[in-house]
Amino acid sequence: MDPALDAASGVNPDRLWQRLMTMATIGAIPGDGVDRAALSAGDIEARAVLIAWARERGFAVEVDEAANLFVRRPGTEARRDPILAGSHMDSQPKGGRFDGIFGVLAAFEALEALEDRGVATRHPVEAVAWTNEEGGRFSPGCMGSMSFTGREPLGRWLPIADAEGVTFETALTQTLAATPDLPRRPFRTPAHAYIEPHIEQGPTLEALDVPIGAVTGIQGSRWFMIEVHGEMAHAGTAPLVGRKDAMRAAVRAIAALQEACHDPEDVTRFTVGKIEALPGSYNTVPNLVRFSVDLRHPDAATLDRLGDRIARVCERAATPCSVTVEETFSQAPVVFPRPIVSAVENAARALGLRAHAMPSGAFHDAAFLAGHCPTGMIFIPCRNGISHNPAEYATPEHCAAGAAVLTAALVAMDATAFA
Amino acid sequence: MDPALDAASGVNPDRLWQRLMTMATIGAIPGDGVDRAALSAGDIEARAVLIAWARERGFAVEVDEAANLFVRRPGTEARRDPILAGSHMDSQPKGGRFDGIFGVLAAFEALEALEDRGVATRHPVEAVAWTNEEGGRFSPGCMGSMSFTGREPLGRWLPIADAEGVTFETALTQTLAATPDLPRRPFRTPAHAYIEPHIEQGPTLEALDVPIGAVTGIQGSRWFMIEVHGEMAHAGTAPLVGRKDAMRAAVRAIAALQEACHDPEDVTRFTVGKIEALPGSYNTVPNLVRFSVDLRHPDAATLDRLGDRIARVCERAATPCSVTVEETFSQAPVVFPRPIVSAVENAARALGLRAHAMPSGAFHDAAFLAGHCPTGMIFIPCRNGISHNPAEYATPEHCAAGAAVLTAALVAMDATAFA
Repeated sequence: MDPALDAASGVNPDRLWQRLMTMATIGAIPGDGVDRAALSAGDIEARAVLIAWARERGFAVEVDEAANLFVRRPGTEARRDPILAGSHMDSQPKGGRFDGIFGVLAAFEALEALEDRGVATRHPVEAVAWTNEEGGRFSPGCMGSMSFTGREPLGRWLPIADAEGVTFETALTQTLAATPDLPRRPFRTPAHAYIEPHIEQGPTLEALDVPIGAVTGIQGSRWFMIEVHGEMAHAGTAPLVGRKDAMRAAVRAIAALQEACHDPEDVTRFTVGKIEALPGSYNTVPNLVRFSVDLRHPDAATLDRLGDRIARVCERAATPCSVTVEETFSQAPVVFPRPIVSAVENAARALGLRAHAMPSGAFHDAAFLAGHCPTGMIFIPCRNGISHNPAEYATPEHCAAGAAVLTAALVAMDATAFA
Repeated sequence: MDPALDAASGVNPDRLWQRLMTMATIGAIPGDGVDRAALSAGDIEARAVLIAWARERGFAVEVDEAANLFVRRPGTEARRDPILAGSHMDSQPKGGRFDGIFGVLAAFEALEALEDRGVATRHPVEAVAWTNEEGGRFSPGCMGSMSFTGREPLGRWLPIADAEGVTFETALTQTLAATPDLPRRPFRTPAHAYIEPHIEQGPTLEALDVPIGAVTGIQGSRWFMIEVHGEMAHAGTAPLVGRKDAMRAAVRAIAALQEACHDPEDVTRFTVGKIEALPGSYNTVPNLVRFSVDLRHPDAATLDRLGDRIARVCERAATPCSVTVEETFSQAPVVFPRPIVSAVENAARALGLRAHAMPSGAFHDAAFLAGHCPTGMIFIPCRNGISHNPAEYATPEHCAAGAAVLTAALVAMDATAFA
């Protein structure tokens, strides 16, 4: 039997589902939701549970200075770098039972499947849980993966405080103190590869009725804050002809941007999520309307081109009002290496599961790991595309399918020499 | 000489301007502005100054329970009801030197002009200052004129508190206590007529280069709060095709409303002054956008028709989102009696001043006096149409022209038996 299929056959759907449901009790909130903020008591408890499960199976556990957690199944060749698989265990304040934790537990299930089937790998295989992916308590998110990969120094996050004034440093110290016996792994420890299973957080796989997304990369994002400047006037006395109505101009600008960013293939993502008018009264023509744009595309050149047109499109549409455009955030697209995407597609095919190649619309720790080692992701469907919400749901079958594809892909990646 | 022209010739432009500038020192704020909230120390001081000027000229002064102030020049026939002229002395928090106070001082100037020229009137002529027209400290505005005319009972306003928690009752008591000797006039005391001089607070007269507006009425207003309900979604993962984007729907609805309310004659006033999107983050497709509509028209039937279409227009444009429309305020148009409008037009013509017949776009105390006695208004231009702003300005020549037309019109109204 092919060792990849042999290993995947070790995936135990019930065990995986039970572990998901056990973790869902830690920080449970009404409506089947989870509130498990990074480095909170719930996060510390979830880590303790994972560590206990690891020790039951005889897996070694390590931690780094950012409290990223590594559960290790050894490889047969001591000099090999580990293959990392996982995601995060923290949640949004009103989060669900699958976002993040599914990736960690699918990776742990893969380790168990390898163990149960006695499949040896040359590289160690590790289940990893990155600290504070969500950024819900300490902003920004992905602090753990950014620190591990050297994208940002850990010291940058230490003074950041949560809503209660507790600093990241304090919460991190408490978290690390809860596991004083764990060996410390240095940041930037090399890895053979990284693969992150995750719920899609969108509707595509469900709509296609396909259980596996072979993620081709993470689309890039550009955020803009746009201000339309007009002139205040009395809503009752000012004729339309003389108005410089910032609201009318903003409505024209938003419509023009929607048109300019329209994509018949529906790949481009264009969203206006924030808007306000000043002075903001019924009977005053606004002199200022401020709105946000979130623009995303998997192709760097397209994202550049569309984003660079925003100021011009707004200025033309907003006449006689004037426009200022500030780019407040940008993240270049990440393209995953072809061999990783192929490993996922091939694993799915070998397991008789359909796979759909697609970019990730959301950010993930994988975006930062991609700068550290060959990286990929596996998506599974989530009901109605809903995430960051207690109603978030993935079926036991899809969770098991994701874990099986992960397990088979890990075996394939173990045999791959990435360029 | 025609007694109307004789009386108008008594208007003293320098005296009027000096009094305007004296009042502008009471509550003066940077940039030539005025902050003279209703029933504040500044308002009490302004009342005291006006009363002192009245007594210098031998005019009687009365007050009512709402602190509306009446300065009386007697008529020759004791049984006649007074002709009232005036406006208000309170200002917006960042108001100008002309809004309201110009009407009071133009009326006072008319009394002085009649006195200086020895022109007798059959009816008493009174300069009136209504309490709290602006509503900036105690909301709503026009409390004084609503109480005097019986539109609303005074008791309705007494518990209303300002931002510091001071009630209208407390401030009113303090104001009345400052003039304990003034005779009290009953609410709903009959009047022969009322005429209110005011800066236009719009750009029309300045654009036409016409010094006098013969106000035909006060346009009606309907205010709406419109909610567009969609579905929250992730800005990165949700394809456009499946979105119920409340922002896209709201932009379409606003554009459709602008189109539906478009008026080639530019009489209809349509303004969106407030807007917000929820949850209000860069990367979330909003599930709720809430915006206001201020719709005005001088013709009741047109206002009804346009306002009644709003829900249907929004619903059609917002598909697949749903819409709720709440009418939060409405005020029917007021049409001033033809004889009053004619008195203003004729007075202007006799004085060699061009006059433009126009509705008032803004509310005024005259809207409530119109339910009490034959009512009209006289507008003068204000620079760039700016009002409710320290930059508000009317020239000494336009102020004098307004006072002269008022004086001549008062004499004509004195001779008119209104139907």
